[in-house]
Amino acid sequence: MSAPDSPGEGGNTEYGRKSFKRSKSHFADRITADGRDGWPVEAGRYRLVASRACPWASRALVSRRLLGLEEAISLAVVDPLQDDRSWRFTLDPDGRDPVLGIRFLSEAYDAREKDYPGGVSVPAVVDVPSGRLVTNDYQRITLDFATEWTALHRPGAPDLYPQELRDEIDEVMEGVYRDVNNGVYRAGFAMSQEEYEGAYRDVFRRLDWLSERLADRRYLVGRSLTEADIRLFTTLVRFDAVYHGHFKCNRSKLAEDPVLWGYVRDLYQTPGFGDTVDFDHIKRHYYMVHTGINPRRIVPVGPDLTGWLTPHAREALGGRPFGDGTPPGPPPVAERVPESGRPPGVAAA
Amino acid sequence: MSAPDSPGEGGNTEYGRKSFKRSKSHFADRITADGRDGWPVEAGRYRLVASRACPWASRALVSRRLLGLEEAISLAVVDPLQDDRSWRFTLDPDGRDPVLGIRFLSEAYDAREKDYPGGVSVPAVVDVPSGRLVTNDYQRITLDFATEWTALHRPGAPDLYPQELRDEIDEVMEGVYRDVNNGVYRAGFAMSQEEYEGAYRDVFRRLDWLSERLADRRYLVGRSLTEADIRLFTTLVRFDAVYHGHFKCNRSKLAEDPVLWGYVRDLYQTPGFGDTVDFDHIKRHYYMVHTGINPRRIVPVGPDLTGWLTPHAREALGGRPFGDGTPPGPPPVAERVPESGRPPGVAAA
Repeated sequence: MSAPDSPGEGGNTEYGRKSFKRSKSHFADRITADGRDGWPVEAGRYRLVASRACPWASRALVSRRLLGLEEAISLAVVDPLQDDRSWRFTLDPDGRDPVLGIRFLSEAYDAREKDYPGGVSVPAVVDVPSGRLVTNDYQRITLDFATEWTALHRPGAPDLYPQELRDEIDEVMEGVYRDVNNGVYRAGFAMSQEEYEGAYRDVFRRLDWLSERLADRRYLVGRSLTEADIRLFTTLVRFDAVYHGHFKCNRSKLAEDPVLWGYVRDLYQTPGFGDTVDFDHIKRHYYMVHTGINPRRIVPVGPDLTGWLTPHAREALGGRPFGDGTPPGPPPVAERVPESGRPPGVAAA
Repeated sequence: MSAPDSPGEGGNTEYGRKSFKRSKSHFADRITADGRDGWPVEAGRYRLVASRACPWASRALVSRRLLGLEEAISLAVVDPLQDDRSWRFTLDPDGRDPVLGIRFLSEAYDAREKDYPGGVSVPAVVDVPSGRLVTNDYQRITLDFATEWTALHRPGAPDLYPQELRDEIDEVMEGVYRDVNNGVYRAGFAMSQEEYEGAYRDVFRRLDWLSERLADRRYLVGRSLTEADIRLFTTLVRFDAVYHGHFKCNRSKLAEDPVLWGYVRDLYQTPGFGDTVDFDHIKRHYYMVHTGINPRRIVPVGPDLTGWLTPHAREALGGRPFGDGTPPGPPPVAERVPESGRPPGVAAA
């Protein structure tokens, strides 16, 4: 999303003086197997536009990898630094996405709805033939990857949203969303001490609850990876690098909680998770874009990232990461995270 | 000092756009046993003005406690938040120091030199009868407490600057000053990424050196507490609470380095060290005064301070904390750090 990642910068109208409110996704069309919204699942037709900096977009990166949708849905990675026209394709030759032919993601928004007054956010799924945005519904995109795109999943793809566990997954995700995924933003963008302290309490109350829940179970729900783990992962992997300092969620680092630190390293080391993470994009985005809380735009050198590949011993808790399925292969060469974004000694795939 | 603690706020003229330069102390008269600068050692004549927020002033608080100079040199504690007239006595009834009768420390500076153009800094020693500032020489004040005020030391006071160790103490302190005491400020107030990264490297190179040095010796120089430990302590005790996040010295927390974390807790738990520390003053000062790097003035709730009283096991390294001397008794009742500034469960004395 761009809105929460650029408060007061780039025209986020929902970032008020009183307290931080996350924008609702405006474009909520769904791409489905039956095409009922006019957007049928189809290989090669859609392009996922994502920022590796953004936790909401990164959910889609992980989900796409685990399900093996790389061939079916192509990927455009935007520059971690927005300008006043929001997300840009400045990492591409001539600053233009080679498939969509546009320089700014806003052009796909404009093609969908002229002069749309809201923010331009990632993840966004764009219809390649028409160049029009289909959806920026970050809560829905990954669920549809898991449940509507099944015909195009790789052989051995896991079931990330199993029917019999959906109630429990939804319940866990709701608390994680409110207190953790969005809680860190409420803390970081608070305009008053009171608002900040309320969010800080929510963050750590929920992290303590998660730490207890994960002490004797390898994954959040059931015995295998689910959507719930993906959504928690994309916040936790950023925690020590940005939320601890930049957003002042500093009761303790994740690395100081043996359970959560083991859990997040387990996921990081699982194919499809860590190979989507670019710490360079993450750090530069948060520290350089949020001038309202980091006016000098200095990007911290730390934290030391060498611990991400250390043994986590979570296998001892049992569980079957991919259920009856298998891990994904390495990411496509063109999508490998550059060395600048990886912890020292971590191979690209 | 006020200068480094209020860059661009309060008229610090030495805080340039290019890089952070620490002001030299302007008033360097010495209070000596022989009174050669006109300021003889004398019980009850001088008043130490200090901020519990400031690491440079806190050296004098620790030194005075260890040496038992509380009766001989009275203490004024300023508000951790300066205003545009700098350090204030707003913690006292009617906002006025009850001994000096002044509202701002600058009044004692004015009494010494009218219209002095430099910054108003702590620690400051004021001559009570005349109301005039004697010295703000933070590098010298504690050395003179240790070596010139000996006639007024308590029975059992340690020798904090022993003749035979001075060369080694001076050498250790010089590196610690440049890379740690002042290094964290150079990192935090850097105006460019390059300047910040240079300071960050200095900080952690020196901390690694210190961690190695302290792995098998309890104190920095010799077998007992010296001035070198005091100067390192006042920076380390602030490290996780402010320098890690606020100044972006975030390779790792002190709590992640078993040697330095053991060392600083050992000192914290030694009478005369921890009983001078007010974490509330420290955090509010840094986060609320430095609007140039924390414009919303939100003060982090963390870090969790409960670890400060945990066992450090440093006794096993031997050493004699007070040499042939003894620990100081508890601080005077009027000087006890309020509960708001102490870790949970830590008694005032």
